[in-house]
Amino acid sequence: MPTYRAPIEDSLFILNDVLNIARYNNLPGFEDATPDTVEAILGEAGKMAEEVLQPLNEVGDTQGCTWHEDHTVTTPNGFKEAYDLYSESGWGALPFPEEYGGQGLPATLNAAVQEYVSSANMAFGMYPGLTAGAAAALITHASDEQKAAYVPKMLSGEWSGTMNLTEPHCGTDLGLMRTKAVPQDDGTYKISGQKIWISAGEHDMSNNIIHLVLARIEGAPEGVDGISLFVAPKYLLDGDGNPGERNGMTCGSLEHKMGINGNATCVMNYDEATGFLVGTEHRGLKAMFVMMNEARLGVGIQGLSQSEVAYQNAADWARERVQGRSISGTKFPDQKADPIIVHPDIRRVLMTARSFNESARALAYWTALQGDLSHRSDDDEVRQAADDFMGLLTPVVKGVITDTGFDNAVRAQQVFGGTGYTKEQGVEQFVRDARIAMIYEGANGIQALDLVGRKLPSKGGRAVQAYFKEVGKFCSAHKDNDEMKPYIEPLSKALSDLQTATMWLVQNGMANPDNAGAASTDYMHLFGLVALGHMWGMMAATAQEKLATGDEGSKQFLENKLLTGKFFMERIIPESATHLVRIQTGADTMMALDAEAF
Amino acid sequence: MPTYRAPIEDSLFILNDVLNIARYNNLPGFEDATPDTVEAILGEAGKMAEEVLQPLNEVGDTQGCTWHEDHTVTTPNGFKEAYDLYSESGWGALPFPEEYGGQGLPATLNAAVQEYVSSANMAFGMYPGLTAGAAAALITHASDEQKAAYVPKMLSGEWSGTMNLTEPHCGTDLGLMRTKAVPQDDGTYKISGQKIWISAGEHDMSNNIIHLVLARIEGAPEGVDGISLFVAPKYLLDGDGNPGERNGMTCGSLEHKMGINGNATCVMNYDEATGFLVGTEHRGLKAMFVMMNEARLGVGIQGLSQSEVAYQNAADWARERVQGRSISGTKFPDQKADPIIVHPDIRRVLMTARSFNESARALAYWTALQGDLSHRSDDDEVRQAADDFMGLLTPVVKGVITDTGFDNAVRAQQVFGGTGYTKEQGVEQFVRDARIAMIYEGANGIQALDLVGRKLPSKGGRAVQAYFKEVGKFCSAHKDNDEMKPYIEPLSKALSDLQTATMWLVQNGMANPDNAGAASTDYMHLFGLVALGHMWGMMAATAQEKLATGDEGSKQFLENKLLTGKFFMERIIPESATHLVRIQTGADTMMALDAEAF
Repeated sequence: MPTYRAPIEDSLFILNDVLNIARYNNLPGFEDATPDTVEAILGEAGKMAEEVLQPLNEVGDTQGCTWHEDHTVTTPNGFKEAYDLYSESGWGALPFPEEYGGQGLPATLNAAVQEYVSSANMAFGMYPGLTAGAAAALITHASDEQKAAYVPKMLSGEWSGTMNLTEPHCGTDLGLMRTKAVPQDDGTYKISGQKIWISAGEHDMSNNIIHLVLARIEGAPEGVDGISLFVAPKYLLDGDGNPGERNGMTCGSLEHKMGINGNATCVMNYDEATGFLVGTEHRGLKAMFVMMNEARLGVGIQGLSQSEVAYQNAADWARERVQGRSISGTKFPDQKADPIIVHPDIRRVLMTARSFNESARALAYWTALQGDLSHRSDDDEVRQAADDFMGLLTPVVKGVITDTGFDNAVRAQQVFGGTGYTKEQGVEQFVRDARIAMIYEGANGIQALDLVGRKLPSKGGRAVQAYFKEVGKFCSAHKDNDEMKPYIEPLSKALSDLQTATMWLVQNGMANPDNAGAASTDYMHLFGLVALGHMWGMMAATAQEKLATGDEGSKQFLENKLLTGKFFMERIIPESATHLVRIQTGADTMMALDAEAF
Repeated sequence: MPTYRAPIEDSLFILNDVLNIARYNNLPGFEDATPDTVEAILGEAGKMAEEVLQPLNEVGDTQGCTWHEDHTVTTPNGFKEAYDLYSESGWGALPFPEEYGGQGLPATLNAAVQEYVSSANMAFGMYPGLTAGAAAALITHASDEQKAAYVPKMLSGEWSGTMNLTEPHCGTDLGLMRTKAVPQDDGTYKISGQKIWISAGEHDMSNNIIHLVLARIEGAPEGVDGISLFVAPKYLLDGDGNPGERNGMTCGSLEHKMGINGNATCVMNYDEATGFLVGTEHRGLKAMFVMMNEARLGVGIQGLSQSEVAYQNAADWARERVQGRSISGTKFPDQKADPIIVHPDIRRVLMTARSFNESARALAYWTALQGDLSHRSDDDEVRQAADDFMGLLTPVVKGVITDTGFDNAVRAQQVFGGTGYTKEQGVEQFVRDARIAMIYEGANGIQALDLVGRKLPSKGGRAVQAYFKEVGKFCSAHKDNDEMKPYIEPLSKALSDLQTATMWLVQNGMANPDNAGAASTDYMHLFGLVALGHMWGMMAATAQEKLATGDEGSKQFLENKLLTGKFFMERIIPESATHLVRIQTGADTMMALDAEAF
């Protein structure tokens, strides 16, 4: 049976020491996020993840969700009780404004909580995760009346939420959408069509399900500029705002998937369901896109979450499993064999995952902090810079952390040998669950294209230039510090590769846009190496400063941190060179083959 | 529903044009392998794979095998009929000596057949695959009487075979083995103990199951030098050599696995089962190791097989699925969107898999040819050189082709977007099935250690030096040919990286063996890049020669071949530089953390 320990010490190091979020205590929400409060909240979140959610992870996978002839869906044993506890404890309300019953705490802190929840039970975490996304969309775009009607009960967990975008013939290309909305005399719309991949579209854990639905109002223009956003509750609200008449959408079936079996992935059939327009007509896709940074950051954290829990279990196994002898000489002569953690190749796997997890965690929090600053800072310049960084780094966080998180789950599985291939050990579930994060919320190829085609050129490259300046400034500030050399030199080299790649893209992507497309995934991963390397630089600098103060309690933690960062700098960040070579190759060869030749 | 087309044209190009196996027509078995015969055999094999085995792949996965209270195991619907057809058609006898009812054909040709079988239905292919392995072990090590008793009926498929090595507490480290064999007065042994992961250990497709079992004879020395090999049939043979009395081993349960559900992976309980010693006592592990090259080559081919079938289905999907517009301008204005194969990032994925598949296929055949030459050549020097190459390349073929084959299955799944995550499309099965090949028959970390710790230093580095000479000679021979420059320059660079890495290993692995362990996986993959690059060099040279003859029929095929090889040289082989950097980093950082710190 797999286990999980929330990495609270590491979260606190990042939040309090590296990012020092206390310095923002003049901003709304941050004033309450004192180090003591943060520690207390993470402690409680860790407990819930370890004791309530993790024990349900396997049953969620093996039992899955069940669709019934009456179109209802039953979630796995224990999920409803866990959901109630999660909701009652207020986890669904943590980062939301107090006026809707939220706790108003920073999204940065919420990022840590979401990692724990997802490591413990990714399929479970998606239910409140979707609700949070839908609530955030309503808060940003809905009328005051709509917000008052729906948001408080969504934050309390009494009602849950969904996002209905995909249709059988359109996922990435939402301009092809066919679901239609017919205006009624009373100002409502009748929505008809089929939506697929609707996570938590139907289930038995909440009293109502608030569907956000993209549809085309009859007569709207073709393409993405004719799509509107609607709110369509499973039960229409009665005069008192309570669930009343059943609305006209049903779950037609559940998808049979590779993983995240505990989550109900629904085919939703809309048959003249009553919907209420959210925001302006024909501006629905734009409205959804505003929410996308947060949603994609959340998916990036899912990638980290599976990498972390898989790593932890592989490390436990590597300490316990005895097999063979150390090639540098027997380490445990009194045992019949040495534990496999003595083998360098096992260490390589563990350190690869660990050096990623710790920096991906920092990057996720750092990006969430940019989101907080972009919303909460009282300084226009800070808000704009933070918004630029959040937008720029979102595809990197989503694409790189889910790609690498999956790779690490696979690596961790390998440590178990044959045992890792069985259901019994639970580690293969991490691989199957992690796989979806590379696909949904914009497949990673789309993230790469978003980075190269949209985020880079946006506003004359303002965001990327500011980012290079930020990382460059960090390198300059530490370049004369000998202890920082093992971190700064490799980071500077990778930054230089990224800048070269960016210049190449500017020059060659304009001449032939296929060159940008051909470079996009490598560019995203090269960007990721710099972003993770930047985090390692910051963490190393902080660790060295703290060590210099002679704090004995955290000495071992800090020294391990420095070693782990060194591993990243020695073995991982040098991959930047290969990415650069690939980028500079261009599109010609890959576009030359006839489509029929494949 | 996934489809499969056996890549016969490509197999023929490699066998006839690149390797030109006709030149060995003076050797036993090769005299029958004329181009016409080869084409006829591959045509039939392709038909069987496409029409009989592939349609059973999904049912094998969803239905799996069923264990019954009476310890019998039922295979999925249709498997028995397919097995009978496979056996009756003689596929199980193809590469075996005629004296046992084999067809005596080259293992090189059999490699092609095995790829098709495994692409179509990897779980099915394991049943005859294990039989072949067990038969080969008997042919090499058993007494004439034993061979006569078992081998012909195994080759005909009437009986099947297994290999029983692993126990719950020992997989990699077989020296820890506990299964015991107690000598009886009649010269037989009573075998008792538990074996796990026994593929095809119990099933309903053959009349008898011939188990090869490793066990420790009572009183034998501890460790690997006290292990003996036994043959223990499910039904003991009666006086006429027919299955008689039931022997004392039973299947206690089936493993629940991530994939290859169509194969019965058994826990086998031996309770005083009668076994017959094969070969010399205490030399059992050595006997098994002799068979390991062939078995590992077979697993490498499984990696290729899933990469190929996943690639084919992704290419089909990419041609059919319309979504978005080409970034270099609309390609199909009369459709609502362009097929996704217009997108460079989709091409990148397809070309990455394709450029690997074609060279991995060549490398698998080339390595199988070395095996053939090592057994069949009449020239001592040729036999020795071929045996050296086979031994050296085996861990590379097994480790690199299964690692990369799995990665390609994952990449292919990504092309499908959300659809690829559902069971319905079948592509996620390729990922789950491919995963096991990285683990069994020696986990890939063990392959890397075998390469670095055993194969490299063997006989003063004779094999690796000969290999460098072989590749170097090829580069020299073509270096003045301008058309070959795009292939030779990158290959020469990678070869130089590999030579540098080898020198580093010699110098630093002796000083501290952990340095060799820390380098091993990167070294194996660096070696793989050179080996695949060498194949691309050979294929490019052959394609250019054939094109120069003006053969119009294969012009398109050959030009596509050259383009695909160019992609490999531009985008894949440059990874060698990162591997070299990693290797030269050494073991210090990864070994520094306390085991408890992970």
